[in-house]
Amino acid sequence: MLTLDKVFNAQMVLKNIIRETNVVRAYGIAPECELYLKPENLQITGSFKVRGSAYKIAMLSEEEKKKGVIACSTGNHAQGVALAATKNGIKSLICLPDTAPISKVEATKGFGAEVCLVEGCYDDAYQKALELRESEGYTFVHPFDDENVIAGQGTIALEILNDLDNIDAIVVPIGGGGLISGIAYTAKQIRPSVKVYGVQVAGAPSMYNSVKDGEIECLSSVSTIADGIAVKKPGEDTFRYVREHVDEIALVTDDEVASAILALIEKQKMIAEGAGATAVAAVMAGKFDLKGKRVVAVVSGGNIDVTSLSRVIDRGLLNSGRSSSLLIELIDKPGQLKEISGIIADCGGNVTGVHYEKGNTESVNGCFLRIEMETRDFEHVNLITKTLRDEGFKLV
Amino acid sequence: MLTLDKVFNAQMVLKNIIRETNVVRAYGIAPECELYLKPENLQITGSFKVRGSAYKIAMLSEEEKKKGVIACSTGNHAQGVALAATKNGIKSLICLPDTAPISKVEATKGFGAEVCLVEGCYDDAYQKALELRESEGYTFVHPFDDENVIAGQGTIALEILNDLDNIDAIVVPIGGGGLISGIAYTAKQIRPSVKVYGVQVAGAPSMYNSVKDGEIECLSSVSTIADGIAVKKPGEDTFRYVREHVDEIALVTDDEVASAILALIEKQKMIAEGAGATAVAAVMAGKFDLKGKRVVAVVSGGNIDVTSLSRVIDRGLLNSGRSSSLLIELIDKPGQLKEISGIIADCGGNVTGVHYEKGNTESVNGCFLRIEMETRDFEHVNLITKTLRDEGFKLV
Repeated sequence: MLTLDKVFNAQMVLKNIIRETNVVRAYGIAPECELYLKPENLQITGSFKVRGSAYKIAMLSEEEKKKGVIACSTGNHAQGVALAATKNGIKSLICLPDTAPISKVEATKGFGAEVCLVEGCYDDAYQKALELRESEGYTFVHPFDDENVIAGQGTIALEILNDLDNIDAIVVPIGGGGLISGIAYTAKQIRPSVKVYGVQVAGAPSMYNSVKDGEIECLSSVSTIADGIAVKKPGEDTFRYVREHVDEIALVTDDEVASAILALIEKQKMIAEGAGATAVAAVMAGKFDLKGKRVVAVVSGGNIDVTSLSRVIDRGLLNSGRSSSLLIELIDKPGQLKEISGIIADCGGNVTGVHYEKGNTESVNGCFLRIEMETRDFEHVNLITKTLRDEGFKLV
Repeated sequence: MLTLDKVFNAQMVLKNIIRETNVVRAYGIAPECELYLKPENLQITGSFKVRGSAYKIAMLSEEEKKKGVIACSTGNHAQGVALAATKNGIKSLICLPDTAPISKVEATKGFGAEVCLVEGCYDDAYQKALELRESEGYTFVHPFDDENVIAGQGTIALEILNDLDNIDAIVVPIGGGGLISGIAYTAKQIRPSVKVYGVQVAGAPSMYNSVKDGEIECLSSVSTIADGIAVKKPGEDTFRYVREHVDEIALVTDDEVASAILALIEKQKMIAEGAGATAVAAVMAGKFDLKGKRVVAVVSGGNIDVTSLSRVIDRGLLNSGRSSSLLIELIDKPGQLKEISGIIADCGGNVTGVHYEKGNTESVNGCFLRIEMETRDFEHVNLITKTLRDEGFKLV
């Protein structure tokens, strides 16, 4: 049974293991409410996950500790367990599918874990972990469906309530539900009037569907840039805590998540991973009634690889009119590029790419010209396209 | 005259205006020393600049306050003065060249300043600001060469020494020299054994040259991605403080700065602007003798526009072998792309772009194939190029 005592105990136990991340006021992201962020992306290991794992591990018996712990994860949970075990001076073994990115394997090793690469996918690695638990006597650390893990995540609510008076709502990402279970239980015990809102992505709505239908459901597949919360099935315990303590769950799209990542970069100078940005995405997109309210959005993690980050930024630039691409049908005669680039320059656009393409143009002598540009906003893009059209160019 | 009393007084005055940014341990960026960051990129307005401006403004007489302040800047100083004036309830006017990016103009207005757009470049805007000071009686807020501004920046040293015991060195970016003057003066008064190291970029080495030659020098031009410290000439006061209190100054390249920005993103989930990342760049590149030392690098600001950020990331990916581009000379016959893409896939590379280009190939039937790929590291790139060569392909 989860109790407030356990959460307070977890806070004491975690004192020398985790960072206490301070709530920070976020300006300019959601002007209609008073928005604060709980930046668990700045937590050690780049995610809140270390809290639950570290408390779980600290509570093991001496004999269990001697045998060590095992977990299965390609992401934040693996690193959380690895660091937590190392800080407690015990052995950890993480099973990963052999398709896992090198960077994740290296990061997990870097925090002191042994890594067992298993041929196949996540499910194969999970099976292997269960086998090793049986044969070697390791304790399995579940990523969310465990009361001590949930108590560890609940310490986030203690820190929020300690940092900030009179908050009206806390908005929290949901994957398996461990984070929101801990926060909702703890916050409502201490301050029953606080609303706790959950957020999932449209591509992985397992808890959303389960709560709506009143029973645990399992998705056949998940697809989202928020890989940290791409969970097919809620936990038994977490489902119960969410039903009891969470006021509302909303879904956000991948594009809303990308916009939130970009806003956190521009306004807060912070990197969030997809899952970590979902709560902010929901606030930005007005998914809950937060007008005039004092709101804390939990930024749960920041472990996004830079290649994905680069794509998210490019997408965000396109979505906000700060980069754009024109396709112009030309009759192939000299001087056309000069004229077009002159018009774009006069309008203040900055050309970053030019490609000639042959294709099914109206005239046999025709071709397509693709121009990539940096622009200020959609108004600016419209100005450039209108000017080109007025000068007789045919935009496709 | 700067005194420690002034810096302590500044700390009291700034209490309700600025954020006290907590020093944070940075793992994995510079393993040979114990590195901490002072994250002034997380400061309100995204830069330390607000400290100096706010103290300067708070110290004005009632009559000066009634008339308001004026400044000239396209960057962090403008936003610092704007916010500081607004928080003190007085008027601020910022002169900007009319070529300044819309986003900077909007940000400055957003903090409550009036903006005066001046035709021409920075120098024209500066002249206009001096004129308006004469005609309207505004107080001019200098970005660095002012003892109250320097005292305000000195509060950073108080916070560092309060957060952390037994530090050996503080590494600080240098533009005009206001930041390092305040930090070096304050730190050495309180803890004389602390080393203070300064960092400039190779494209704007004004303080570096001036200190080396023993007199203030003026650069004819500056060129760097660290635009926040692209200053042509040190201040009179700051030159004196740097000579007296700074132990050493080093230069870093733009590529070293780009690598530092990328490391801060990946390891600390933080956005730094070019100038803001220079101290970290110097530590990473081993510019000072810091082995085994407890070191604080000041991350002075985070106001980088996302278009530049996207370029820096792309550059960083190339520099670390995580993206790469091959140029292969082909004889134009069917099936070649299939074979090449098969080899790359077998090696685990991820193709992100393919272009056929005609050109001056050996055979008349030849062509060039450019392939862009995501790769793991340079070893991985070498594996792919070696395999292609072994299969008889001609890489250019």
